[in-house]
Amino acid sequence: MSTKPPSGTRDFLPDDIRRREYVIGVVRDVYERYGFEPLETPAFENIETLLGKYGEEGNKLIFKILKRGEHEQTGEADLALRYDLTVPLARVVAHYQNELPRFFKRYQIQPVWRADRPARGRFREFFQCDIDALGTTSQLVEVEILSAVSEILQRLGFTDFRIRVNDRRLLTALLTRSGVPPPFHDEALIALDKLDKIGFDGVEREMAARGIPPAAVSALLTVMRRATEPPKENAGHAWVLGPVASEPGAQNLSDIVTLSEQTAASGKVVVDLSLARGLSYYTGTIIEITVPDLAGSLGGGGRYDGLVGMFLGRDVPACGFSLGLERIIVVMTERGMFPPDVACGGIDAMITIWNHETRAESLALAAELRKSGLRVDVYPEADKLGKQFKYASARRAPFVAILGDDERARGEVGLKDLRSGDQTSVRRSELAATIRERLRPERGAGG
Amino acid sequence: MSTKPPSGTRDFLPDDIRRREYVIGVVRDVYERYGFEPLETPAFENIETLLGKYGEEGNKLIFKILKRGEHEQTGEADLALRYDLTVPLARVVAHYQNELPRFFKRYQIQPVWRADRPARGRFREFFQCDIDALGTTSQLVEVEILSAVSEILQRLGFTDFRIRVNDRRLLTALLTRSGVPPPFHDEALIALDKLDKIGFDGVEREMAARGIPPAAVSALLTVMRRATEPPKENAGHAWVLGPVASEPGAQNLSDIVTLSEQTAASGKVVVDLSLARGLSYYTGTIIEITVPDLAGSLGGGGRYDGLVGMFLGRDVPACGFSLGLERIIVVMTERGMFPPDVACGGIDAMITIWNHETRAESLALAAELRKSGLRVDVYPEADKLGKQFKYASARRAPFVAILGDDERARGEVGLKDLRSGDQTSVRRSELAATIRERLRPERGAGG
Repeated sequence: MSTKPPSGTRDFLPDDIRRREYVIGVVRDVYERYGFEPLETPAFENIETLLGKYGEEGNKLIFKILKRGEHEQTGEADLALRYDLTVPLARVVAHYQNELPRFFKRYQIQPVWRADRPARGRFREFFQCDIDALGTTSQLVEVEILSAVSEILQRLGFTDFRIRVNDRRLLTALLTRSGVPPPFHDEALIALDKLDKIGFDGVEREMAARGIPPAAVSALLTVMRRATEPPKENAGHAWVLGPVASEPGAQNLSDIVTLSEQTAASGKVVVDLSLARGLSYYTGTIIEITVPDLAGSLGGGGRYDGLVGMFLGRDVPACGFSLGLERIIVVMTERGMFPPDVACGGIDAMITIWNHETRAESLALAAELRKSGLRVDVYPEADKLGKQFKYASARRAPFVAILGDDERARGEVGLKDLRSGDQTSVRRSELAATIRERLRPERGAGG
Repeated sequence: MSTKPPSGTRDFLPDDIRRREYVIGVVRDVYERYGFEPLETPAFENIETLLGKYGEEGNKLIFKILKRGEHEQTGEADLALRYDLTVPLARVVAHYQNELPRFFKRYQIQPVWRADRPARGRFREFFQCDIDALGTTSQLVEVEILSAVSEILQRLGFTDFRIRVNDRRLLTALLTRSGVPPPFHDEALIALDKLDKIGFDGVEREMAARGIPPAAVSALLTVMRRATEPPKENAGHAWVLGPVASEPGAQNLSDIVTLSEQTAASGKVVVDLSLARGLSYYTGTIIEITVPDLAGSLGGGGRYDGLVGMFLGRDVPACGFSLGLERIIVVMTERGMFPPDVACGGIDAMITIWNHETRAESLALAAELRKSGLRVDVYPEADKLGKQFKYASARRAPFVAILGDDERARGEVGLKDLRSGDQTSVRRSELAATIRERLRPERGAGG
């Protein structure tokens, strides 16, 4: 029987978890400071909740769960694993509308599952860290979200990320103005979204292959070319938006960039007219965050004013952003961005067992040290002392406490510092304080 | 389309999450102090990893996932949702045996899924909080586990829990000695496990119905009756074990009870010869923790020295315990055991929007307060002040900051305390410190 985790999934050993918890801790702390509150939803949803929300490609990537009991033989599925955190949120907002505040701001940090082909940084089980605000069309929502996400990335040590923003309404206007027939809009956006990967020539070829009229392609790409030229005289987003400044969505983008200058996102936000984003539920602002050394994005989001309406029957304006935990961790690991004390072992001290009769005394000493907040392991057997030290090293314990016959007779404990090799004798009543004191320069004690 | 979560599952709104996080925080802190390290495994396993590990009843309760793509039509399942945290641990220990320390002590706090009939405190998605120690047969493992779990329950405020222990080897010896034929051992244990629900007469009837010879039933229940009588002269577990003191497993239980007196489990551990526990993988000590006002247990566990061998080909001794998060929360909620500040709202202050032009200034003020660690919401729209206050109340914000024209002209901010109704003017540079100061008696600021 194979002992590997299923394809595209991972086991997280202790050091992995500690790195993940470090990132999640920063994410959660910043989201809380921005006034977002935690929400969690079940791992699976009724299958009809998910089907039809992610386009045809998305439907195929949904993990479906067999009906139970006698229905198992039919091969029918009635449940499906969560594919993102946005559709479950829309269901929740529709269901608990009378219990939630007028503006509902929630964060959600949970795994999602997609039956994608596994690749570097792409898994079948991966965590998303989402924030969303519902109940208002105000651009302050976009601005606060960009600020929160920027603060997270900055606290994690990222300085070179770029926030690209665009607006779905602006894209639609551009396509219409260029003469792309409405039935071809989705196809055109899929091709346009690849601009940074395949360049203008590639996009032109792909649009032709998809049957979009050449005159329309040419008109569209002329605007795009100008928009991606370097701005004249520091004109910034005004330059990019120049040719389309009066179209719907342009003022929205302009406001977002301007207001962001007052926040942690200052200097990071750029308008990118070629940004399209795949998910079909976006209706206004769309956002993506990239770093130079990662193909794909660290996260993305946007405004989806129509999604809650699919559950509720009336629209509720909404905007959100999803940070990809796995990709953040991939980049932080490759760049060596984790602080050295994040994954440096799980215990502060190990207590030896002198002989079978003194086991109870070792347990009592462990209780004293733990009471002071130290993380303490007790060696489980009355083994040779050498073996006990070897295990303490394997667990990266900085200290070993030895309750030998002589020490016990004097009310003392032998204390070995495994980092320096020094061994001293310490009064038992002072042991916890001594260990805490010596740990301090290296790292804080406690979990 | 229904907006309810699937049958047997729940959405956790912010206050629910804060209560859950409070309990999980205590669990994690204590597990860490006992030297256990975190592990997480995927939500699903290859289906053959799970099948055949939980008995026939268990197999039926496993959620199975359809193969993807063109295989979907076959109705075949190749993956299954995690049913407990122990079998995935056994797989992990087999797979990473060369990377793990000689004694591997891990904790794992993750959801599991069982297609059980939903009932009070019984869900189809529920969290388990497991600790396990692998690599040794030493009873110190059992003792440390009982101590850790006791400390958790005590820190949460439980004083009336009882830890019942028994030993599978002792049960087998008892059955054999009483003349229960080996093919009936499993049936006899299932009946015996119901003793606290249906009493001696009920067990006797059930054993008869299952075809166990009457003489054997009578012999077995005679021992059980004596074992459950009140001990004579404070003889404790020695009294209970009296008639079977020389059987295998008896010394084990006696040692565990005696050593536990040195730990946080002192006074809580009782030997109960009728405890059987359903899961088929236990081989030695078995444990269950109960409180008077909950049918079923708060958690259970035991020694399973053969399970890793099913993956590895050679046995690795192991012992563990699983705390049921949902049941702990059910009892704590019914008894009113949560500290009042656990779920008292997610923000410390809300900042109003005076008018459309001062939005940027409200954002800048929010940044200042957040920098000091406060959790701050900005009202998203330039709305009537009354509406803004109403929303702040709905979010249970203790403070509202008002950036009115007069205040801004004086470099001040209006500060309204929504708990008392008082409104004052505060120098902007002192606002964060003022809020922190006034929050202190009620609760700590920050996430």
